[in-house]
Amino acid sequence: MSAPTALRVHPDDNIGIVVRPEGVKPGEPVAGGAAVLDATPQGQKIATAGIEAGEPVIRYGQVIGRALRQVQAGGWLREQDISLPEPPDLDRLELATRVPPDQPPLEGFTFEGYPNSDGSTGTRNLLGITTTVQCVAPTVEFAVQRIRNEILPRFRNVDGVAAITHNFGCGVAIDAPGAEVPIRTIAHLSRHANIGGRSLIVSLGCEKMQPARLESPPGSGLSVLDPAPDVIRLQDRLGFGAMISSICEAAEKRLEELDRRRRTQCPASELIVGLQCGGSDAFSGVTANPAVGFAADLLVRAGATVMFSEVTEVRDAVHLLTPRCATVEVAQRFIDEMRWYDAYLARLGADRSANTTPGNKRGGLANIVEKALGSVAKSGTTAIRAVAGQGEKVTAKGLVFAATPASDFVCGTQQLASMNLHIFTTGEGTPYGLAMAPVVKVSSRTALAEKWPDLIDVDAGRIATGQADIESVGWEMFRFVLEVAGGRKTWAEHWGLANGLAPFHPGAVT
Amino acid sequence: MSAPTALRVHPDDNIGIVVRPEGVKPGEPVAGGAAVLDATPQGQKIATAGIEAGEPVIRYGQVIGRALRQVQAGGWLREQDISLPEPPDLDRLELATRVPPDQPPLEGFTFEGYPNSDGSTGTRNLLGITTTVQCVAPTVEFAVQRIRNEILPRFRNVDGVAAITHNFGCGVAIDAPGAEVPIRTIAHLSRHANIGGRSLIVSLGCEKMQPARLESPPGSGLSVLDPAPDVIRLQDRLGFGAMISSICEAAEKRLEELDRRRRTQCPASELIVGLQCGGSDAFSGVTANPAVGFAADLLVRAGATVMFSEVTEVRDAVHLLTPRCATVEVAQRFIDEMRWYDAYLARLGADRSANTTPGNKRGGLANIVEKALGSVAKSGTTAIRAVAGQGEKVTAKGLVFAATPASDFVCGTQQLASMNLHIFTTGEGTPYGLAMAPVVKVSSRTALAEKWPDLIDVDAGRIATGQADIESVGWEMFRFVLEVAGGRKTWAEHWGLANGLAPFHPGAVT
Repeated sequence: MSAPTALRVHPDDNIGIVVRPEGVKPGEPVAGGAAVLDATPQGQKIATAGIEAGEPVIRYGQVIGRALRQVQAGGWLREQDISLPEPPDLDRLELATRVPPDQPPLEGFTFEGYPNSDGSTGTRNLLGITTTVQCVAPTVEFAVQRIRNEILPRFRNVDGVAAITHNFGCGVAIDAPGAEVPIRTIAHLSRHANIGGRSLIVSLGCEKMQPARLESPPGSGLSVLDPAPDVIRLQDRLGFGAMISSICEAAEKRLEELDRRRRTQCPASELIVGLQCGGSDAFSGVTANPAVGFAADLLVRAGATVMFSEVTEVRDAVHLLTPRCATVEVAQRFIDEMRWYDAYLARLGADRSANTTPGNKRGGLANIVEKALGSVAKSGTTAIRAVAGQGEKVTAKGLVFAATPASDFVCGTQQLASMNLHIFTTGEGTPYGLAMAPVVKVSSRTALAEKWPDLIDVDAGRIATGQADIESVGWEMFRFVLEVAGGRKTWAEHWGLANGLAPFHPGAVT
Repeated sequence: MSAPTALRVHPDDNIGIVVRPEGVKPGEPVAGGAAVLDATPQGQKIATAGIEAGEPVIRYGQVIGRALRQVQAGGWLREQDISLPEPPDLDRLELATRVPPDQPPLEGFTFEGYPNSDGSTGTRNLLGITTTVQCVAPTVEFAVQRIRNEILPRFRNVDGVAAITHNFGCGVAIDAPGAEVPIRTIAHLSRHANIGGRSLIVSLGCEKMQPARLESPPGSGLSVLDPAPDVIRLQDRLGFGAMISSICEAAEKRLEELDRRRRTQCPASELIVGLQCGGSDAFSGVTANPAVGFAADLLVRAGATVMFSEVTEVRDAVHLLTPRCATVEVAQRFIDEMRWYDAYLARLGADRSANTTPGNKRGGLANIVEKALGSVAKSGTTAIRAVAGQGEKVTAKGLVFAATPASDFVCGTQQLASMNLHIFTTGEGTPYGLAMAPVVKVSSRTALAEKWPDLIDVDAGRIATGQADIESVGWEMFRFVLEVAGGRKTWAEHWGLANGLAPFHPGAVT
């Protein structure tokens, strides 16, 4: 089956996306009856009908901007030919007006997980070591090397050691607005399902984020752990050698507990899956993201939690999302999060249009509107059950919007605070991974999957070429996710690729 | 020689600091003739004369606040007994009115350094690998492990490999205000003296901070390198294995160049020394910081560059610094940097009073005024020759104020962009270190040096007990710095302690 010249997503669209890696040549036929006018590279837009200057450019059945010059049918519409529209007015949105009905439940799907005493379920069995401040990170890394080399080999049921290090904890206005976001995020990471719900805490002693601040931070919903976690305060130790010994001793004690755990059959409803895209291209919104959206629907039908995020990548599609919210209250919280981020960006002299990257543009995404419309395809078609604010943990079942920045590593860190598995779609490609949760990487183009066979876990590019469809790739992804949740390693895990944690801190550095 | 009960720094002071680790007991004599009234711990303040409510509390001959209750001579003045004054009015400062005359030059001091073709001098001979975005950091770390294990051992004249990784590069408003700060910082780090003035660049491909942005960023003063640095773009590589091979190949080529270098005698004037304090206590301003200040004067006399920084820790002492600026223009730039940070903090709902930490307070520092007065003692007594803005490289000789946040790891990263050696004073203690420059750690109390003999390089606590004086410790530090610059390892280097780079980003995350 040969690839179409230019792919249209919605019958109202007046542009199509060039599918073939080698691009198209003048004279080739285009859907709608015209012929290609300009040699146009893969991912770029071809007008499928004539568009006058000032007329809307339509993709996904939505206006992504207006033509800044007249373009004939078959002509190449470049980024600079399309205006950036105003974002949807937050005061004029429909709230919970088109709530999708529940889809039929999927019964009987399970994975081999680690149930925790707090009710969560791990997909991995890791030793977690939290740092309260960046100052102690190299000391913890030193200890982690020793633990990996000398202690961990005796505990064959433990998958590894995750140092929860970050650039927060001191040199910040700890009581000023914004500091609550990273504090909550780090507190949740320290109770992560994949570290058995508790971590060792390594503190310097004089830092602003004292260990007590992680116990039950305001707005976190966390209650104080009983028994309290082990806290190692470096300023109490007699020298560097003693610091390392005390971390290693506490680690060994915890490893003995973790080593007694075994995987057991758990219902798929115990999964909390974070969805993210990074290095998106024009195909992301037609292949990888809709396939992930289909898998998201399957996960929701199986009773799991599915999070989508990235405020600046939903902002321009918010009018499609607030009607899907389960209640007016959920829709209102959704809008509150949009408003908060609008204000955050404005305060720092930016807006949501700063989101798109050189790679997005090269990949054919003209602006943030087009990117957002493709990005939200990850959310599938079910009702949005809840909204979690910046740094809040997702607790609801079903589809949830978790407000985070769109930055891959910042969003990933914030989603990680809630999720036990990550699905990451990419068009341009990234070797991204996390230490604390498996990351399933999905390519939007087959060319990427062929170029990076040792990094891409699922190729959704086959959808563009007609070799597969959204439904079949969605099912494949759903089954793969259950296997990975049960211990199958992703490529990122195989190589040990773990991006550093980057908790979002919208407040002041002092 | 026994330690005094309470140490006064200036004849006008109406308080003294308890010196003895075990504190003082009621009835012990206090300078000024009174007797101790309350059992008072080390580092805390004792009134050496009666202070009425509303009267100024004076330390370093400066008002650090007003008494909130009446305190008798010999009484313990706690943090909550002292009000926080308004910061000095930036519109009413003396500019270059008391410029210190040049001190006699120090001739003949040298160190064994690595002269670079750009005129800078390295104190270490490292392979540098810059990442343009956090996404590629784990891939670079994977390659660095292989380089360290398999390639570096063949190059005995190279000291190590430094990965210039960070949380910047994408997911940010790259053209909005504030982004220029981390871009400049990373650009300067990529030309660091200790990596021979150039690094390999590893780029993902689609990120916002494209490698070209590091070539000659606006305001950096950098010109494009010729020949251009090696850039490895991961999205051009056929899989993860190929990414690692290409980084290793480029590394090997660069290691061959670096391995041909030998240390040669260089004048002390080639040193660029950054001064910082972290985990400060009430002794920092009487022992470690003044001794560093004396060493700073010696370095300046020897023709070197000495930087002090940390805006929120100079803000309340700015009235002592603008008169010391060499010219009105320098003083004006100093004020501009204060004003910029005041506005930055205000925009984010904070002010400079958010600086002090629980450790500072436990260590006896009542507020940011007292902390600042102790902090600026690091600057010694010479004229302030220049001011560098956030992310700017220091190029002047002599004493320079380089505006940075006070956060240890953020300040350290920004100073690192300019310095080839770091002096770090600490009261509470921190195992801080850097991969790219040696960090000399100086303790403010002997108790810390005794507790951490394998982390503290120089003990300035002997000044408080009378076993040494500021001048002798200053000279000791100066000579130690020249040895370390010439290759002697600090404790942090011995253990390989390297805090992650944390470039200051005052702008928006998207």
